[in-house]
Amino acid sequence: MKGIFFSDVSGIDPENNLICTYYVETAGSLERAGEAIAAEESIGTWTDIKTTTIDIQRRLAAKAFKFEEKESGIGLIKVAWPVELFDLEKGGIPNIMSMIAGNLFGLSALKNVRLLDAEFPKSVLTYFPGPKFGLEGVREIVGTQESRRPHLGTIIKPKVGLNPSETAEVAYEAAVGGVDLIKDDETLVSQSFCPLEERLSKVMEKMDLVKEETGRTVFYALNITGNLKRLFEFADYTVENGANMVMLDILLSGLAALQSLAEDPSIKLPIHCHRTFHAAFTKNPLHGVHMKVIARLTRLAGGDQLHTGTAAGKMGLKGEPAEVVETNEALLQAQGNIKPVIPVASGGIHPALVPKNVEILGKELVINAGGGIHGHPDGTRAGATAMRQAIDAAMKNITLERYAETHPELRKALEKWGYRYEEKSESIEERYGA
Amino acid sequence: MKGIFFSDVSGIDPENNLICTYYVETAGSLERAGEAIAAEESIGTWTDIKTTTIDIQRRLAAKAFKFEEKESGIGLIKVAWPVELFDLEKGGIPNIMSMIAGNLFGLSALKNVRLLDAEFPKSVLTYFPGPKFGLEGVREIVGTQESRRPHLGTIIKPKVGLNPSETAEVAYEAAVGGVDLIKDDETLVSQSFCPLEERLSKVMEKMDLVKEETGRTVFYALNITGNLKRLFEFADYTVENGANMVMLDILLSGLAALQSLAEDPSIKLPIHCHRTFHAAFTKNPLHGVHMKVIARLTRLAGGDQLHTGTAAGKMGLKGEPAEVVETNEALLQAQGNIKPVIPVASGGIHPALVPKNVEILGKELVINAGGGIHGHPDGTRAGATAMRQAIDAAMKNITLERYAETHPELRKALEKWGYRYEEKSESIEERYGA
Repeated sequence: MKGIFFSDVSGIDPENNLICTYYVETAGSLERAGEAIAAEESIGTWTDIKTTTIDIQRRLAAKAFKFEEKESGIGLIKVAWPVELFDLEKGGIPNIMSMIAGNLFGLSALKNVRLLDAEFPKSVLTYFPGPKFGLEGVREIVGTQESRRPHLGTIIKPKVGLNPSETAEVAYEAAVGGVDLIKDDETLVSQSFCPLEERLSKVMEKMDLVKEETGRTVFYALNITGNLKRLFEFADYTVENGANMVMLDILLSGLAALQSLAEDPSIKLPIHCHRTFHAAFTKNPLHGVHMKVIARLTRLAGGDQLHTGTAAGKMGLKGEPAEVVETNEALLQAQGNIKPVIPVASGGIHPALVPKNVEILGKELVINAGGGIHGHPDGTRAGATAMRQAIDAAMKNITLERYAETHPELRKALEKWGYRYEEKSESIEERYGA
Repeated sequence: MKGIFFSDVSGIDPENNLICTYYVETAGSLERAGEAIAAEESIGTWTDIKTTTIDIQRRLAAKAFKFEEKESGIGLIKVAWPVELFDLEKGGIPNIMSMIAGNLFGLSALKNVRLLDAEFPKSVLTYFPGPKFGLEGVREIVGTQESRRPHLGTIIKPKVGLNPSETAEVAYEAAVGGVDLIKDDETLVSQSFCPLEERLSKVMEKMDLVKEETGRTVFYALNITGNLKRLFEFADYTVENGANMVMLDILLSGLAALQSLAEDPSIKLPIHCHRTFHAAFTKNPLHGVHMKVIARLTRLAGGDQLHTGTAAGKMGLKGEPAEVVETNEALLQAQGNIKPVIPVASGGIHPALVPKNVEILGKELVINAGGGIHGHPDGTRAGATAMRQAIDAAMKNITLERYAETHPELRKALEKWGYRYEEKSESIEERYGA
C-alpha cells in the first residue's frame, strides 16, 4: 500500500481539486518527491499503517502529476488536492494552508520546495467573501474610475515617534500635496507616544479639512494590527469614529483575522493589507512560497489593497519584477465573483522610479512613497506634488526631464534622487550613507 | 542625519531593550547592514527626511552593535530595540514581530538575514500571560511529576479520512496501549467526514473508559484551528463538552490567536501548539527565523506544549539536532514568572529512534509517533505499547535489544523498522517505497 496511489492521475477534475504547482529539488526522483508531498499532506504517513482504507485513499488522497524535470531531481510538479479534504467553512485559509503549505517544507527528503501557485476551483471560491470594495470600489471613492491613473500613497515618516498632532500635520501636508492615501507605518499601532484613538481623530479632522479645501477624498489607512481582542475593538472603534480605511498586517495577524474583518458587515471600510514578514519565506526563489499564492489567499479573504512589491525600489526580490507582475495579475484577473484587489507598490520609491513602475506594473496600482515624499528638499507637501507630477507625466507619456521643466517640485526631487531609474542595485553604503 | 545614530551603542540597557541576534550576509560591510536593519525597522527610512527630530532619534532608534564578522560581509550582529518602540499591550506579538522580523527580510542590500534569537527584558514579559499549565501543570495531570519520564503521544492516522467512531476506536487502542496524549493531525479540523463536535464526544467517551479501566488520564488534543469566529466558538464548545486539551496551528492561526485563547480565563485547558508552515522560513540556516524565536514567542503567548522537531526522525533541518536542543532550552529555561513549555518531538519517530531522542533532547519531552505506532505489525495498541517500552528502556538505561527480549511488542516493532538509530538519512525511495 506504500506509494502506489499518489501517482494515479486519473480522475483529476479541476472543478473538484485545488491544484498547486511546486518547485522541487530532491536527491531522488521528482516523481517520488511529488508522492512524498501528496502523501505527507493528505492521507499518508511515512510507513504503511493498518488504520486506513481503500475508500479513504480513493476519495481523499492528493495526487502528484505533470512532472517537468529541468535537471535530475530538480523541476516542477503539480499536486491535486480533492476539495473534500478541506474544511472550507470552519477551517478556512489556515486549514487550506496546513495542507498545501504545511509540513512539506520540512521534509528532509526535499532539499528545497517552493509553492509557486494555487488554483482554486469555483466550489472553493464560494466559501470566501472577497473584497467588500476592491479595485472599482476604491477607485469610485477616489474618483479615478474614468482616468484609471495609479493612486498615490504615502507612509507617515518617521515610521514611529511622531505624536498624533504631528502625524496629522504630516498627513495634511501630504494630502494637500496630492496623495490619495495616507497609511500608518506597519510598525505603528497604538504606542504610548501616539495612541490610535487620538491619531485617528486628529488625522481625520485634517482629511475633512482637505475635503473642504480641495473636494478630494483622501484615505487614511489606520493600522489596527495587534492582539485579537484589540483588533476587533479597534475595528469597531474606527468605524464608529469616522475612519475611511483600516490597515492590517495580514501575515503577522493571520489571514483568518483578515477574513473575519472582511466578513463583518459592520466594518464598511476598505482594508489595506500590509505583508510585513513575507520575505522570510518569499525571498528565496528555491524554497518557501511565491507571493502570488499569498495574493490569491488575501483576495479570497477580502483584502481591498495589498502590498506586492515594486518593479524598481528598495525591497528587491530575486526574480523581480517578473514575480511582482505575476502576483499583481493574480489580484486583478477575473476570478468568479471575487472582486479584484489593488496592488500596492511600496518600498524606496521616489519620482524617478515612477515611470518604470508604471511601465512594468501598469496603471491599476497604488504607488506608495514614504522617504520619497517626506525627504523632498522642500518637505512633504512638495514631495507629494512631485510624486503626483511624476504619475501625471507617466500617464501623458512625457519624460520626467521634460515634465520637470514646467514642474519645479518634480525638478527638485529629480535633482536630489536622480533623473531616471538605474538598472544597477544600490549598495547599503549608497543607501544609508557613509 | 543619514546613518549616524544607529551605531551609537551607548545607553543599551538590557532592562529597556529587546536584544536580537541576526545572521547577515551582505555585499557591503556588516556595520552598514546592521544600521540598515536598525533603521528600516525602527525610525528610519532610506533617505533623510524633514519630519524626524533629535528627540525621536534619541528615544526610539534601534541600535546595531557587537558585529562578529566571520568573513567579509558575513557574520552576526545584535540589534537593541528600545521597549518604548513597541505597543506591548495592544499590539502584542504582531507588533513586536513587525519590527524584529518584518521588512528586514526583504531589504535588497542584504543577501540573506536570519533572526537567531530575541531576548526579552522583564518589563516585556509582564505583558504576556505565559502558559496556564506549562510543564508541571501537564505532568501533574498525567501523573509524571515524580518519574519525569517523557510523555508518549500519538497522532491519529490516516491524517484525515476516518469518521468520528473510527477515530475514537483508534484513540482507544492507542490509549490502552500506553500513550499519554492523542492529537488530531494538523490538517484535520471539522471536515464533513469527521465533524469536530461528534469527534470530541466519541473520543472523550473512550478516554473516560480508559480512565475507568486503567486509572490513567489520557489527553486528547482537539484541533480547533480555523477561521477566527469558529476558533472561539470551538474553544468554548470544547470546554463545555468535556475536552481536556485543545490544539492550535500557531503560525497559520497566528500567535495573537494563541494569546487570546491563553488569556481567556474560561478556557481551562492546556493548549497543544502545532507549528505547521514553520519550515517555509526556519529550514534555511541562512535566511528567515530560527525556531528558537518562535518558541520564545509561543511561550509568552501561552502555549503549553510546542512541536520543536526531533533529534532523529523525518522532519530534518540543517543544523539539527543542535537547533532543536537550543529551541527546547528556550522553552524550559527559567524566564521570570512565565512557566516552562513542554517540547514535542514529532515526525517519523518509531521505537528504535527513542533512545537517541531522549539522549539528545532529554526527558522533559513529549515523544510523538504516528506511523511509528499505527504501522506496528500488530496494530495501534501493540504499537503504543512498543513505544512505551522503548521509553521505559531509555529511562532504565537498558538497550532496546535487551529490553525486546522480554517485551514482544517492542521486538516486533524493531524487527520492522530496525533496531537502532542509523546516522544516514533515508532517501524518499526508502521512505515511501518504490
